Amino acid sequence: MPKYVDHEKRRRELARAAHRVAGEGGLEALTVRAIAKEAGYSTGVLAHYFTNRADLLLAAFREVYEGAMTRAQTQVRLDGEDPVNALLDALFEALPLDPERRADTTVWFAFLGLAAGNPELQREGGDRYQRWRAFLQEAVVAAHPEPVSMAEAQRIATYLAALVAGLGLQALFDPDGLPPDELRRELRRAVSLELGVVDLRDDTVTR
Amino acid sequence: MPKYVDHEKRRRELARAAHRVAGEGGLEALTVRAIAKEAGYSTGVLAHYFTNRADLLLAAFREVYEGAMTRAQTQVRLDGEDPVNALLDALFEALPLDPERRADTTVWFAFLGLAAGNPELQREGGDRYQRWRAFLQEAVVAAHPEPVSMAEAQRIATYLAALVAGLGLQALFDPDGLPPDELRRELRRAVSLELGVVDLRDDTVTR
Repeated sequence: MPKYVDHEKRRRELARAAHRVAGEGGLEALTVRAIAKEAGYSTGVLAHYFTNRADLLLAAFREVYEGAMTRAQTQVRLDGEDPVNALLDALFEALPLDPERRADTTVWFAFLGLAAGNPELQREGGDRYQRWRAFLQEAVVAAHPEPVSMAEAQRIATYLAALVAGLGLQALFDPDGLPPDELRRELRRAVSLELGVVDLRDDTVTR
Repeated sequence: MPKYVDHEKRRRELARAAHRVAGEGGLEALTVRAIAKEAGYSTGVLAHYFTNRADLLLAAFREVYEGAMTRAQTQVRLDGEDPVNALLDALFEALPLDPERRADTTVWFAFLGLAAGNPELQREGGDRYQRWRAFLQEAVVAAHPEPVSMAEAQRIATYLAALVAGLGLQALFDPDGLPPDELRRELRRAVSLELGVVDLRDDTVTR
């Protein structure tokens, strides 16, 4: 009987290895050889699953994205009775607040840099961005103390998504200048201003 | 008499060719061959100036950065008597509002993607980010209607720099979803909220 291989499972396993490699060494470290080593396979096995480096990076990006999205959705479910903090916790999932999410941010920007010159990757990045904003838009509607128009909720979602990306980028390049506490504080402040709420969870509460 | 070649001038000329190539085709298009073709030199001449692709991209990034910084500083000088609009115009120089600045944004993110895995490039990116924020911080102090502490001016500068980067990124991936008018409007709104001013230039005035 031939040995059964779950190809989808192995693709994801390799993508996660790519995530670990990129998290430690960034885009430059993300070679087929390094990922094969990290995953414990030969480069020949890897070649069976990915045609080139961009393909691999796309898979790692998908893993990172789906992981962050699932965590954000879970936060919204868990904090269901406190939708402002739910929105905040969802946003925190996309910030480099710990080593795991710092690796996420590295993969994310490594992917974006590559995507900047590749229409197919650009489309993929654009689609995921839209899904992220649509998710945030729903969370904004739930969190807003007043009835809010779709256009306004969309505007706030776009604004918050931009802020998260820009703060994450700065934190990646200047970790000392923008430590996790400050990232959280800026996000809280922005949400508070945009939604016109003041009763945000106390600063001393960590997650 | 040997022919005199201004090496620094040629390096910058090649960096500008890299900028044009990256603006049209992004990171992937940025090959030594494509840049040589764009600049009208042989790849052999190019190899004399840049040791590898990262080196070339770094030079293009420097050109883009210095160009945007000079334009931003000029805006502040020109609008000296209206420091709020000066700050705004400086921020606009870093947004993809026209094809030229769209090419800038592409080079910027292509560089960041590469830098994500390269300590030397990361340092370079971090240093320039700090210069940009220091410049914004001065413009914020000048524009703020109240005396403002250095810490608060720095916070606002960091916030606005993050917003510009995040909005630029979204506009790059989703140009239709975030057209130039909306980018300007969001920036005006943020500056107005952060500085507590309302008398910003009318929306219908374009630049």
